[in-house]
Amino acid sequence: MTTVHADTARIPVPTQSTYQTRVADYWNAEENPVNLELGKIDDLYHHHYGIGDADRTVLDEPDPGRRRERLTGELHRLEEAQAQLLASHLGQLSPADRVFDAGCGRGGGSVVANLRYGCHADGVTISAKQADFANQQARKRGIDDKVSYHHRNMLDTGFTSGAYAASWNNESTMYVELDLLFAEHARLLRRGGRYVTITGCYNDTYGRASREVSLINAHYICDIHPRSAYFRAMARNRLVPTHVQDLTQAALPYWELRKEADHLVTGIEDTFLTAYRNGSFQYLLIVADRV
Amino acid sequence: MTTVHADTARIPVPTQSTYQTRVADYWNAEENPVNLELGKIDDLYHHHYGIGDADRTVLDEPDPGRRRERLTGELHRLEEAQAQLLASHLGQLSPADRVFDAGCGRGGGSVVANLRYGCHADGVTISAKQADFANQQARKRGIDDKVSYHHRNMLDTGFTSGAYAASWNNESTMYVELDLLFAEHARLLRRGGRYVTITGCYNDTYGRASREVSLINAHYICDIHPRSAYFRAMARNRLVPTHVQDLTQAALPYWELRKEADHLVTGIEDTFLTAYRNGSFQYLLIVADRV
Amino acid sequence: MTTVHADTARIPVPTQSTYQTRVADYWNAEENPVNLELGKIDDLYHHHYGIGDADRTVLDEPDPGRRRERLTGELHRLEEAQAQLLASHLGQLSPADRVFDAGCGRGGGSVVANLRYGCHADGVTISAKQADFANQQARKRGIDDKVSYHHRNMLDTGFTSGAYAASWNNESTMYVELDLLFAEHARLLRRGGRYVTITGCYNDTYGRASREVSLINAHYICDIHPRSAYFRAMARNRLVPTHVQDLTQAALPYWELRKEADHLVTGIEDTFLTAYRNGSFQYLLIVADRV
Amino acid sequence: MTTVHADTARIPVPTQSTYQTRVADYWNAEENPVNLELGKIDDLYHHHYGIGDADRTVLDEPDPGRRRERLTGELHRLEEAQAQLLASHLGQLSPADRVFDAGCGRGGGSVVANLRYGCHADGVTISAKQADFANQQARKRGIDDKVSYHHRNMLDTGFTSGAYAASWNNESTMYVELDLLFAEHARLLRRGGRYVTITGCYNDTYGRASREVSLINAHYICDIHPRSAYFRAMARNRLVPTHVQDLTQAALPYWELRKEADHLVTGIEDTFLTAYRNGSFQYLLIVADRV
Amino acid sequence: MTTVHADTARIPVPTQSTYQTRVADYWNAEENPVNLELGKIDDLYHHHYGIGDADRTVLDEPDPGRRRERLTGELHRLEEAQAQLLASHLGQLSPADRVFDAGCGRGGGSVVANLRYGCHADGVTISAKQADFANQQARKRGIDDKVSYHHRNMLDTGFTSGAYAASWNNESTMYVELDLLFAEHARLLRRGGRYVTITGCYNDTYGRASREVSLINAHYICDIHPRSAYFRAMARNRLVPTHVQDLTQAALPYWELRKEADHLVTGIEDTFLTAYRNGSFQYLLIVADRV
Amino acid sequence: MTTVHADTARIPVPTQSTYQTRVADYWNAEENPVNLELGKIDDLYHHHYGIGDADRTVLDEPDPGRRRERLTGELHRLEEAQAQLLASHLGQLSPADRVFDAGCGRGGGSVVANLRYGCHADGVTISAKQADFANQQARKRGIDDKVSYHHRNMLDTGFTSGAYAASWNNESTMYVELDLLFAEHARLLRRGGRYVTITGCYNDTYGRASREVSLINAHYICDIHPRSAYFRAMARNRLVPTHVQDLTQAALPYWELRKEADHLVTGIEDTFLTAYRNGSFQYLLIVADRV
Repeated sequence: MTTVHADTARIPVPTQSTYQTRVADYWNAEENPVNLELGKIDDLYHHHYGIGDADRTVLDEPDPGRRRERLTGELHRLEEAQAQLLASHLGQLSPADRVFDAGCGRGGGSVVANLRYGCHADGVTISAKQADFANQQARKRGIDDKVSYHHRNMLDTGFTSGAYAASWNNESTMYVELDLLFAEHARLLRRGGRYVTITGCYNDTYGRASREVSLINAHYICDIHPRSAYFRAMARNRLVPTHVQDLTQAALPYWELRKEADHLVTGIEDTFLTAYRNGSFQYLLIVADRV
Repeated sequence: MTTVHADTARIPVPTQSTYQTRVADYWNAEENPVNLELGKIDDLYHHHYGIGDADRTVLDEPDPGRRRERLTGELHRLEEAQAQLLASHLGQLSPADRVFDAGCGRGGGSVVANLRYGCHADGVTISAKQADFANQQARKRGIDDKVSYHHRNMLDTGFTSGAYAASWNNESTMYVELDLLFAEHARLLRRGGRYVTITGCYNDTYGRASREVSLINAHYICDIHPRSAYFRAMARNRLVPTHVQDLTQAALPYWELRKEADHLVTGIEDTFLTAYRNGSFQYLLIVADRV
Repeated sequence: MTTVHADTARIPVPTQSTYQTRVADYWNAEENPVNLELGKIDDLYHHHYGIGDADRTVLDEPDPGRRRERLTGELHRLEEAQAQLLASHLGQLSPADRVFDAGCGRGGGSVVANLRYGCHADGVTISAKQADFANQQARKRGIDDKVSYHHRNMLDTGFTSGAYAASWNNESTMYVELDLLFAEHARLLRRGGRYVTITGCYNDTYGRASREVSLINAHYICDIHPRSAYFRAMARNRLVPTHVQDLTQAALPYWELRKEADHLVTGIEDTFLTAYRNGSFQYLLIVADRV
Repeated sequence: MTTVHADTARIPVPTQSTYQTRVADYWNAEENPVNLELGKIDDLYHHHYGIGDADRTVLDEPDPGRRRERLTGELHRLEEAQAQLLASHLGQLSPADRVFDAGCGRGGGSVVANLRYGCHADGVTISAKQADFANQQARKRGIDDKVSYHHRNMLDTGFTSGAYAASWNNESTMYVELDLLFAEHARLLRRGGRYVTITGCYNDTYGRASREVSLINAHYICDIHPRSAYFRAMARNRLVPTHVQDLTQAALPYWELRKEADHLVTGIEDTFLTAYRNGSFQYLLIVADRV
Repeated sequence: MTTVHADTARIPVPTQSTYQTRVADYWNAEENPVNLELGKIDDLYHHHYGIGDADRTVLDEPDPGRRRERLTGELHRLEEAQAQLLASHLGQLSPADRVFDAGCGRGGGSVVANLRYGCHADGVTISAKQADFANQQARKRGIDDKVSYHHRNMLDTGFTSGAYAASWNNESTMYVELDLLFAEHARLLRRGGRYVTITGCYNDTYGRASREVSLINAHYICDIHPRSAYFRAMARNRLVPTHVQDLTQAALPYWELRKEADHLVTGIEDTFLTAYRNGSFQYLLIVADRV
Repeated sequence: MTTVHADTARIPVPTQSTYQTRVADYWNAEENPVNLELGKIDDLYHHHYGIGDADRTVLDEPDPGRRRERLTGELHRLEEAQAQLLASHLGQLSPADRVFDAGCGRGGGSVVANLRYGCHADGVTISAKQADFANQQARKRGIDDKVSYHHRNMLDTGFTSGAYAASWNNESTMYVELDLLFAEHARLLRRGGRYVTITGCYNDTYGRASREVSLINAHYICDIHPRSAYFRAMARNRLVPTHVQDLTQAALPYWELRKEADHLVTGIEDTFLTAYRNGSFQYLLIVADRV
């Protein structure tokens, strides 16, 4: 089944708007240590945050080099835990199944899914550089017969309708219109297929987007949706939630640790912590069935 | 604030349809031991099922009377666990807050909420007999200044807009149109208020309603909704999910135990077990914010 | 034009859900005398009920064998009257026109349309056995150049857009989502084409589905829609009613007679009679134009 | 119950738009013999057309005065048949029930309903002159304790919600927005109440409004809706069709006879006949339940 | 890119409804001097009205022939001004861009766009005669390599999705359903493409269609939409207004002058003037972006 | 009519969400010279930007004090021009008419409307301090019998339905949900009433919110809507655009001048200029009729 897609993996994505070009430029240029240093550890390059309790004893490490190393490792362990949580909700997948990784970044999520289920994976990113990097990694791991990355628009992939058993967005929904996104997932997923997203969303209960949410938007050139927007757009696109979990509390240890890592911080750490704590921002897992 | 409602508690509900009359007749006549015997234990009368692991050693009890007693007690413990799970999601309530129990049956849920938070509660049931029974219980407990039950239509309560901090349906949504129901909850809840439901729903992933689901409908004269219907109707009525949990697995021990209780069975036990196991039916918790 | 479809008539339908498999299993196994015995009379095999006044003198027939025969014949006359009523609303069709029979069962309806108008017909059923049986009948009649049956999903036929002058569902809408169904009819019908359905629906005026409606659902593994659902879904799919007729009264004589036919009853007869008489269930004809 | 409305019957309607003023002016000035001469026969003043087979022998009457008289009588018989058809679909009404006649003109329809069922009736017209005339007629008949006419806007009557067992528009829907109209009917009707309309609509199957339809619009300063608009607006306003009948053929004899009546013609007769015959215009009965 | 379309330019449009046939017949037969005489001046044949202040001194011209000539010239100048206003809003187009002229009539608008921007143009008309005439003109001008006209249905052009940088309707929206029309424009326009319409619409502020609006409908066999319908249909089809201008006052001088031109009047002049002046009718420019 | 509202002018607004409290806090604390210094000139305190060509010779003024004064004056002239543009689109208002100023700030807009038309005005602001200040100004001018300011939520004013001839938002829509806002305007405006907004919106043609838009959001704690959202929400709330104008170019001179005014800058000036120039942000005037 891979061959169906392999030939199109190098077709350049028609960038549709100035905004998308600017986002692509950002990610083509991005070389944040928090992504690269953590990925180097085991060649699982993620572009998302971590969850779960942190081992804060790494901060007590007296040796500066070792402290950096242990801090980096601990943050990677937390982001790995997040990736595993997402992967654990993809449903019962077999090696013959195919999954779609929307907004795949440097490719870590697809590798996790492949390692876990043996399944085929198609990752899509708007950054040509990320797609190249990820495909290189797949070749290096020897899984490029099953896992491939495509420089495409996740709203208009050109992939075959109904060909996917599962799909996900790991912190990549804030760059796109949700109705267009979920329409594409609904088109690609087979009946009964599973969709999963972990995302930051702003909290309608708090009100409109807080100042902190806007600062995060400015930092990443993204446009964070309110929580309500996810459920409205899913309702319109035959995606029915089966599990929803507020991960906000579970996300705090990662950020509290990260702000101590001088070699990794990007400057947005305190804004995240404030946003989570004042109730204006949430870290949310939604698992839905394609019906 | 209670006095606002107290005077209207005895106003008979205008029964709007033949269907509603038939449902009211059913509950006015209902005297199932599984509801009454369990309630007698501690005067917490529930009309819902239980969750969590069961102590199946009660089945090994050699003395028949004692066996019945322990079985009854264990089932009550499980339904109590369900009631507590629901109540634990009502948000941070103070004694000054007011909650709305839609489809209150013999009143157990409102008592649980009052015991837990000290809050005011208004229960609504289409059965005059249930409302009377529940009010009697409240008086007996000495909480009738804070908890009252009303013989009303939950779709058209006549209660004050925005007066409620939380509201719920515990296995009572399958008797009504969800859009009308959620419109009424949205009207009654204050901004930021919390809505919770635990419900049986049929599973869109399986397909349409299975034979087992239809048999359950016939048993209770109800009309079980597909899971998708909940999220669509919430999306239209400013109720935004914050926590969704599939309780199907957690519901099985209750039913497996109940089918062994000859003095309590109603005959629907195997149908529930088959429906849960073949994937056509789910026991679902949805927690949502009124935005 | 037939050749366009002939080659695909044997392509197995991708069964999409467990529910659909279970429905297909039901119909593959079904051998009810009320369908087979009646069909044998003149090789018009219907899967629906009858309408119109019954000749109840057949019950007075003293000879048991003759009584059975006359009873069978009378029921077949009534179901034939129903099929003719439906066919009479298909619009002005010529032999060059093509019609679509959605949920064709053992094929009687398409034969009726062909005999009446000389038109081409494509029947679709989820049961491979029914499709085979129906195609055999068509060959036997020598009309297999114009009438063919397909083992397909009526929600996703793969047939050519706009190729049909008329289409119908005769008691087969209760197995599917109406929005998906009417979208497919609207796609297949040419502008100005005619859609007809005769269906049992539950009556919104009564309220939600009654116990009897649920028992019918359990009997046939179907999911009867409320009357309102038909008009809402048609309004969304460019199908505009031009004639609507409540056939409930006209359906009673068939059921009253059938319950006397010991050799044909399936056990659901009294439930139907009660449901029709207590106002919770209706037998409805809707004729609509594709605009 | 009458007294509730009696005091408001003289409150002038706030005319909302220039269009409505112009329509009101038209009907305040209108003195067409086809309305007045026919009404005089038995004091049943209708503002609609007739249905059914005509006795065309009246045209052979040699005496000119007698010919006019018989022609007038025959047309009145046909319009009376139309009024009775509408009234026969209002459901089972008792003398305690109340009906709403939206766009009542000179009041004939409400009298017909009162004579048939003994029920209370509230007619509403935008023309003060028509309301006065109709109330005068009611007093003359001695039914003004049960039947009253109001100079109001049918889109915003100010009447009590849920107070009506039935309501109708007899050829008056083409002056208003259907969504606003049906929202008001749905508000006024009790659950299970019946709504009936007989109306000219343009035929979506034909296409957009034909020249003839536009000429009719110009003649009456109205804005004829397409057939589809009725079903879409009903679907949005909890009005579910139970009977739909195309009366176009039944309407032709009236118009064919009327065009021969030199003393009654208004000049629009041929346009109606052409519009009905070329398929662009339909005379439709819709009976719906308020659910 | 032209060649993509050239081969299909002669494929006859499948006329879908009686209404469309009648409109096509009208335009195939139409030979109004007000269109032909004005077009002859410089071979720019328009089918729309003019805007801007008129030079009414042409009426004082004593020589009758010269007066006619000057009158004709002045009216053409005004309709040319209208065409230029529309063209000026098409966005920044290059010679490589392609535009779509929906309802192109005798082709003037596409020529104007080509002359202004050097772009490719595809005009579509339901009249075969108009398409032939317009193609002849293009050949005569030597621009038939860039500008071509097609006898097609503008609701279903068969052109390539996303291939157009701009598109418009110049007084041709009143013949079609706006939702179907805007869906086709949205399909054809690339993201960020520009849509422009100049149209007569009836004014919802006034109320429903006035008598004058209906007379205009009858004159042209069209079905003028209310202003609100444009914005509702655009909102559903990803067309976002960026400039809206009421041209009603600017349209009056054209009509005031035209009614003095005995050799050009069609008889509808006074109706337009009354409709514009009594507030029931508007001449509107809407410029929107495809997002 | 004023007295209807006067008694409620001091009723504190129920602040509904944390977000609203934070916005109110911001404006209660705000003392930006760019608002206060400009307002002092003639006691017209605006909270919006200016439009039109600027007299940049004020920058050449050698005397620093005089330069500041002239700069301040010039900026005030430009913001006054904006206020007049808005006011000029409110329709034909008489002194008996009443207007609603949603998000009135320190009250300048209502004064402008009163001076221009002599009409009554009700301003609403979420900041108690702004309402007090504005009422003080009205008293000082002696127009407090006609103009009053209320500390209320503009989404839920409690004012009388249909009582307003015109209403507006001048740069205040970005703090609220548009559907709630336009529903309130539609409720308050009489049929045919006029709604006007001047607002910054992000440009859907560009894509999602740009970094600059997010920085503006962070600066003001607001949540700028995309342009499309305005037209969608108006379409749902019976507000029909009649004039739409892109004021982006006209807004540049104000910002270019303001960035030179060291005594007035707030630091957001360059962000605005970049946002306007890169096409991601627009300054838009929408004039709509309530139908």
